[in-house]
Amino acid sequence: MVLMKHVMSSQQLSLLSYANTCMLMASSSVYRRQQFLIRSLGGGIDHSRNMQQDLRSVEVDAESVIRSITPALDPTRHKGQAGKIAVIGGCREYTGAPYFAAISALKIGADLSHVFCTKDAAPVIKSYSPELIVHPVLEESYSVREEDKKTISRKVLAEVDKWMERFDCLVIGPGLGRDPFLLDCVSEIMRHARQTNVPIVIDGDGLFLVTNNIDLVSGYGLAVLTPNVNEYKRLVEKVLSSEVNDVDATQQVLSLAKKIGGVTILKKEKSDLISDGDTVKSVSIYGSPRRCGGQGDILSGSVAVFLSWARQHIIAADPNSNLSCKNPAVLGCVAGSAMMRKAASLAFCHKKRSTVTGDIIECLGESLEDICPAT
Amino acid sequence: MVLMKHVMSSQQLSLLSYANTCMLMASSSVYRRQQFLIRSLGGGIDHSRNMQQDLRSVEVDAESVIRSITPALDPTRHKGQAGKIAVIGGCREYTGAPYFAAISALKIGADLSHVFCTKDAAPVIKSYSPELIVHPVLEESYSVREEDKKTISRKVLAEVDKWMERFDCLVIGPGLGRDPFLLDCVSEIMRHARQTNVPIVIDGDGLFLVTNNIDLVSGYGLAVLTPNVNEYKRLVEKVLSSEVNDVDATQQVLSLAKKIGGVTILKKEKSDLISDGDTVKSVSIYGSPRRCGGQGDILSGSVAVFLSWARQHIIAADPNSNLSCKNPAVLGCVAGSAMMRKAASLAFCHKKRSTVTGDIIECLGESLEDICPAT
Repeated sequence: MVLMKHVMSSQQLSLLSYANTCMLMASSSVYRRQQFLIRSLGGGIDHSRNMQQDLRSVEVDAESVIRSITPALDPTRHKGQAGKIAVIGGCREYTGAPYFAAISALKIGADLSHVFCTKDAAPVIKSYSPELIVHPVLEESYSVREEDKKTISRKVLAEVDKWMERFDCLVIGPGLGRDPFLLDCVSEIMRHARQTNVPIVIDGDGLFLVTNNIDLVSGYGLAVLTPNVNEYKRLVEKVLSSEVNDVDATQQVLSLAKKIGGVTILKKEKSDLISDGDTVKSVSIYGSPRRCGGQGDILSGSVAVFLSWARQHIIAADPNSNLSCKNPAVLGCVAGSAMMRKAASLAFCHKKRSTVTGDIIECLGESLEDICPAT
Repeated sequence: MVLMKHVMSSQQLSLLSYANTCMLMASSSVYRRQQFLIRSLGGGIDHSRNMQQDLRSVEVDAESVIRSITPALDPTRHKGQAGKIAVIGGCREYTGAPYFAAISALKIGADLSHVFCTKDAAPVIKSYSPELIVHPVLEESYSVREEDKKTISRKVLAEVDKWMERFDCLVIGPGLGRDPFLLDCVSEIMRHARQTNVPIVIDGDGLFLVTNNIDLVSGYGLAVLTPNVNEYKRLVEKVLSSEVNDVDATQQVLSLAKKIGGVTILKKEKSDLISDGDTVKSVSIYGSPRRCGGQGDILSGSVAVFLSWARQHIIAADPNSNLSCKNPAVLGCVAGSAMMRKAASLAFCHKKRSTVTGDIIECLGESLEDICPAT
C-alpha cells in the first residue's frame, strides 16, 4: 500500500473509493477502514494539501451520530412521533424539488410529510406521490391584484399557521421560485416558525431570500442553511464582505456561522463542512461523482428529519448518549450529509452515469438500514 | 462461414446481428468482430450493393468517439458541469416527445434538463418525471389575440433568454406542433441561440420549420438536423431541388450539408449517415428492427449531450485526444447515433416486439456503461 501513495493521484483514489463502495456495499466497517486508509495516504494532493489537512482534522464519525439520534422503533409509538415535516416550496415553474425534499423525509423515516406550494404546482406534486399531503396555498404575483395583496398574504399565513405547531421542522426553499410577493409571504412564515421555535432548514431559493434578508435567520439557533458552491459564495460576499477562502475553509465557515448569530451552515462540496459558529465538522465518507440536479433537495429533507430526531434525543437527555455535540442542528446536518452521501454512492453503484435523483431516493432506506438496522 | 455467404440473405444477417447483441451484450469487442464478419460477407446484397459499399467506406468507430468525448467523473466537479440541456417543444397535442428527449439527456449523464413548452403541456410533462425542470412559457394561436401577439412574443423570448446563456445545447422540435404563432416565437429563439453560440439540435416539427426557413440555420456550424426518411426527402427537395438518391447517398448528404453552409445532418436510416459538408460518417453498429415512435426524441436528447461534451473536449484541447474530426456537431451525432442504436438493441433483446420508447431509455445507462465505464 505504500507504493500506492506514490503512484495514485487524488482522483484515482476517489474513484477507487467508489469502486470499493460497490464491492463492499453490505460491509460498511470494511468500507470505513478503506476510507481511513485513503485519507491516511493523503491522496497525493498538491495545491489543496492544506485544505485536505484542514478538513481531515474535523472529520466526524457521522455513522455513530446517526446511530445515536435515530429513535428506536417501538410498537407503542403513535403516528407523528417519528417526525412531521413540512416543505415550503413549489411554484408554477418548479415542482420536482419540493417533491424530492418531502418524499426523502418520509423515506428516512418521518411519519408525515407536507408540502405548501402554489395552486399551479399542487396537482403536479400530488401526482408524483399519494404519500404526501400537499396544500395549494401559496400565491405568485401574476395571480394577485395589487389591492388584494395584504388580504391574500394574511390568508396564506393563516393557512400555514393552522399547522405550524404540529411540525417538527420546516424545509424552506426547494422549488420556491423568486416571485417577490411569494417571497414576502415566505418571510412571514419564517418569522412565525421562529416565534414558535420550529426549526427551519433553508435551501435553494430560500437561500436567495435569506442572503438578501439575513435578519430573518440571524441569531436563530434552530436555523440551518445548506448552500452549494454558488450559494455559499453569495452568502460569504454578503455577510463577511469577502471572497471564498478555500485554503482555510473551516475557519471561514466558522466565522460565517458566528456572524449570523449561531445558525448552522452546511456547506455542500466534495467534503461537506458544517458549523454553528462554535464547532466545525466535516463529512467526507461515501459520496458520488454524479451531480444531477435535485440532490440538494434530498439533503434538505433528510437534515429536517435528523434534526427533529436529534432534538428529541437531546430533550429526552438519554443518559446512554455518548454525543459530545449538543446542537441538534449540527447533529442533523452531520447525519443528513452522511445519509445523502451513502445513498448517492449506492445509487451510483447501480446506475453509474445515468443515476438520477429518484434513484438516490430509492437507496435512502437501504442506507439507513445498513448504518442503523431497524431491528 | 463461406457457406453462409451463399445461403444467408441480408435480412437474415441483420437478424443474426440482433441475436448476437443479445448473447454478447457484455462483450462489445466480440460483437464488433461479428459485425465486421457480417460486413465482410457482403450480406448477399443485390440492387443495393453500391450503396452498401458506399456506406461501408465511411463507417466510423463510434464507440471510440464515445470514449474520447465522455468526460471523466471527477468528484471536484459541480452541478451543471456535465451539461445543461433544454428542449423547446411540447404543446396541447404532444407531450411525450419533449419528455423523451429531456429525460434521455439526463440518463446519458447531463446534470440538468429543462423543457420549454406551452401552458397546457407543462403539467403533463412535469407529471411524467420530477427530474425535469419544465417552463410553461410557449403560446399557441388559439389562446392569443391578434393585437397581443407582439407583446406575448416578446414575453416568451424574454423568458427563454433569461436562461439561454446557461444552456450547453438546445433541442428544438420534439412535440412542437405546427402552430404558426408558436413557430414564429421558436424562430426567434433559434436566432437568439445562434447569437449566443448555443448549439441547436433540430428534430420533428423543428425540421418542418427549418425546411421552410433554411436561413434560420444556414451557415451555423453548431446546428444539427436529424431528419428521418420523409423529413430528409423534403429537405433534399427544398434545398437541392432534386429527388433523394439512394445509390450515392453519402455524396448527397455531403452536398446537402454543404449547401446549408456546413450545418451537420444526421440522416436516420438503417445505417445513420452524418455529414457537415466536409466529411461523411456512417454508423451502422447495433440497432433494432422495432420502429416505435419516440426513438428520434431519444436520439435528439442524446446528440445534445454528446455535442456539449465534444465541444468541451475540443475546447480543452486534450493532448491525449486521438480524434481526427474536430467538429463537435459531427462527433455528437456519431456518439448519439451509436448510443441510441445500442440502447435500442438491448431493449429489443429484453422486450422484442413489445419494446416501447421508455424501455429504450431505461437501457441508455447500461449502454453507456458498457462502452465507457464510469469507473
